[in-house]
Amino acid sequence: MQLNADGKLKHFLTIEGLPPLLLEEILNRADQFVSLPGKAQVQAPLLRGKTVMNLFFENSTRTRTTFELAAKRLSADLLNLDIRNSSATKGESLLDTIRNLEAMGCDMFVVRHSSSGAAHFIARYCAPHISVINAGDGKHAHPTQAMLDMLTIRQHKGDFPPLKVAIVGDIKHSRVARSLIHALTTLCCGEIRVISPKTLMPESIEQMGVNVYTDIEKGVVDVDVVIMLRLQHERMNSALLPSVREYYARYGLTEERLELAKPDAIVMHPGPVNRGVEIDSRVADGPQSVIMQQVTNGVAVRMAVMSMVLGSQAMVDGS
Amino acid sequence: MQLNADGKLKHFLTIEGLPPLLLEEILNRADQFVSLPGKAQVQAPLLRGKTVMNLFFENSTRTRTTFELAAKRLSADLLNLDIRNSSATKGESLLDTIRNLEAMGCDMFVVRHSSSGAAHFIARYCAPHISVINAGDGKHAHPTQAMLDMLTIRQHKGDFPPLKVAIVGDIKHSRVARSLIHALTTLCCGEIRVISPKTLMPESIEQMGVNVYTDIEKGVVDVDVVIMLRLQHERMNSALLPSVREYYARYGLTEERLELAKPDAIVMHPGPVNRGVEIDSRVADGPQSVIMQQVTNGVAVRMAVMSMVLGSQAMVDGS
Amino acid sequence: MQLNADGKLKHFLTIEGLPPLLLEEILNRADQFVSLPGKAQVQAPLLRGKTVMNLFFENSTRTRTTFELAAKRLSADLLNLDIRNSSATKGESLLDTIRNLEAMGCDMFVVRHSSSGAAHFIARYCAPHISVINAGDGKHAHPTQAMLDMLTIRQHKGDFPPLKVAIVGDIKHSRVARSLIHALTTLCCGEIRVISPKTLMPESIEQMGVNVYTDIEKGVVDVDVVIMLRLQHERMNSALLPSVREYYARYGLTEERLELAKPDAIVMHPGPVNRGVEIDSRVADGPQSVIMQQVTNGVAVRMAVMSMVLGSQAMVDGS
Repeated sequence: MQLNADGKLKHFLTIEGLPPLLLEEILNRADQFVSLPGKAQVQAPLLRGKTVMNLFFENSTRTRTTFELAAKRLSADLLNLDIRNSSATKGESLLDTIRNLEAMGCDMFVVRHSSSGAAHFIARYCAPHISVINAGDGKHAHPTQAMLDMLTIRQHKGDFPPLKVAIVGDIKHSRVARSLIHALTTLCCGEIRVISPKTLMPESIEQMGVNVYTDIEKGVVDVDVVIMLRLQHERMNSALLPSVREYYARYGLTEERLELAKPDAIVMHPGPVNRGVEIDSRVADGPQSVIMQQVTNGVAVRMAVMSMVLGSQAMVDGS
Repeated sequence: MQLNADGKLKHFLTIEGLPPLLLEEILNRADQFVSLPGKAQVQAPLLRGKTVMNLFFENSTRTRTTFELAAKRLSADLLNLDIRNSSATKGESLLDTIRNLEAMGCDMFVVRHSSSGAAHFIARYCAPHISVINAGDGKHAHPTQAMLDMLTIRQHKGDFPPLKVAIVGDIKHSRVARSLIHALTTLCCGEIRVISPKTLMPESIEQMGVNVYTDIEKGVVDVDVVIMLRLQHERMNSALLPSVREYYARYGLTEERLELAKPDAIVMHPGPVNRGVEIDSRVADGPQSVIMQQVTNGVAVRMAVMSMVLGSQAMVDGS
Repeated sequence: MQLNADGKLKHFLTIEGLPPLLLEEILNRADQFVSLPGKAQVQAPLLRGKTVMNLFFENSTRTRTTFELAAKRLSADLLNLDIRNSSATKGESLLDTIRNLEAMGCDMFVVRHSSSGAAHFIARYCAPHISVINAGDGKHAHPTQAMLDMLTIRQHKGDFPPLKVAIVGDIKHSRVARSLIHALTTLCCGEIRVISPKTLMPESIEQMGVNVYTDIEKGVVDVDVVIMLRLQHERMNSALLPSVREYYARYGLTEERLELAKPDAIVMHPGPVNRGVEIDSRVADGPQSVIMQQVTNGVAVRMAVMSMVLGSQAMVDGS
């Protein structure tokens, strides 16, 4: 469904099932869009005359902003739909809303929704010339986040087969973790470890090709990359967790624990960081942290994906 | 008041009183701005260097978005004023707000307001170089909606004199109906019928040159165009209506009723559609429905009007 | 801190301490950016490829709008961050928010905050290539407002040394007054008078080089410029003031009181105006009022400052 008849990227909904070459094309293209701080931003008028609409049913200023910047730097017309104040509240269905936005001349929807599958649903039922990018759907997928993580790893560590990567935190509820595991697997990462309390570990996770740890001090030994997940506030007071303090004591990434990884290991986090909850501030701000580089790469990856989906479309249309 | 000394369109506040040639100029110009889905949007830098401000005192994401798209495709600088959070709440009067926005270098106000006459008020008191477009004022007028309806009819049916057009629903409270009747009358539509329960029919409506029906099954017989109005939620539980269910039973546009019209009759609706209230989903989504084409035409008509009012202005200024 | 090693403007946080030549450069540059009403706005692509972010922690539609217009007319990419709905509410610190926006490729922050010193704080800790403009911080400073006032005065009265300027109102809580006194002092204004009830007069204000009056009818005698301050609503019912009515009786600028000033004195107000509280409508709208010209100048001054801070930056970077 994500690829057109020529195997080009039409929608970007999930990493699962995408061919390795396509993921590499995203990374290669994104590398060209990375801007150095303080220099004029890389701009490419690839989407001039195209209209991109941000449909954020779930609030996320950060992700929305990076998509907005990406669209502007590609010269698209970008609209942020205030979807919670829109006619949805007048009883219009999601499909009617989509039909109307299509009719106004939309070429791409960027969709964030609290329900898993929302972006797929829109991609299935929208007009054939439109592309959909999933900016996070429920616990399901967050593919652009996964690709910016992959880009960051590749910039520091080169190819994936020799690498050991640890993902630490609430694996069970994390769309970031799911998408990242798919991406790492597709690009043949040497070893993927997931580290989590049992209550936050999905059943049968081993079937995704990962090694499971409940002890962070075993899990991070000798890894090249440590990816910390954000602990969601709604989880903090739930029965799944004893207390924030105990979580930090058992799973927080401290300087001591980071020393167990390779000396040149990098530390990543999708943000926003809960300092003192999942990670020590000294690690988040330390020399091995590449968290801010992830943010920079986020704009570049979104530019890459946006330009690819609309490029594929042009080829199909023959226009 | 809407025309300047040369008879050019200076403001677009109401259809009433505008000459037929001017309405046709809007339609002709809009036809050139219609974009085909999936193609790059028609763009024309006619408003480069001009500043357009959306003043939506009443919320309408849909209408606001089409004006925003229209302005961007004309290369204007567009600002959405968050008028409900602005200094209006600090006790500043509407006129002071207008004066300030003028002083910032605004060239056009697009005004939506729940009070009839708001756009006229602003047009009367704003600086002479500024144009005002009415995007809906109370129960009074919604002239761009009327013109997009006219464009849609003309695209399907050609000239208006041979046509029979039925408007069905809450005629009494509908600015859409009022503006549309003026437009149809101005362009010499063969017959205009209004169909409504007596409680939702304005007194003396016949004086507008329409034929009145309270029975939809008589009113739609042999018409070329059926325009359904949206039933406002605030009306649904009022004393003016028995119940939504009974309204649908008596006035809902079903496939059976549509068969009473001409075989090639088109079905229109200003949106958002209340499925199962004023119209059956099978009709709204059926082969005779042109509802989505109305939305597409909405952007084109707004581009046409925006470019005309600022064009007239340039001629007056001699710039 | 505001100047770089070459003495160029890097940040614009406060008037205090800036050299006279630099203030004059702002005024000279702003003069070139003033647009005549009804003409195409002056546009200059000096910030093309640059990203400006409006960080308004405190609401101010008017000031935000003028910065937005200024950025657009300089061809910058402008983002309005909805900072109150952002991850700040997810417990992220201000510095983490800033770091993330930097990493997305921001070149300039425009900061409005209810706490004095907020813009300084951001300027101190943000990345070295970024410029910060203070759009009002607590009771501390509002330097672009002061410069638009200076521009307006200079346009009407020429150089500052021969002038007598009166500032009337809540001097104690006014960032506008503080910044303006610094600007007038720096450009050697002949005499600065502050006029206020004792309860709204800061202690030791004389040390700023101003003459203090509690009687407006003495204070405005023979002045060239009368600048009325806005009385904040939160002050109106406080113990510091008897009543709005008595305030107007004692300090409101009426036509009679204005006659005590020079015959060609101009009247200014930062807006929004409380008619009948600090100023009579006949004065606010009268022939001596230049309040709307201040608004026009506000866009020009912000364009001047934005282009200067990013210009200085380019020189430092060698880019």
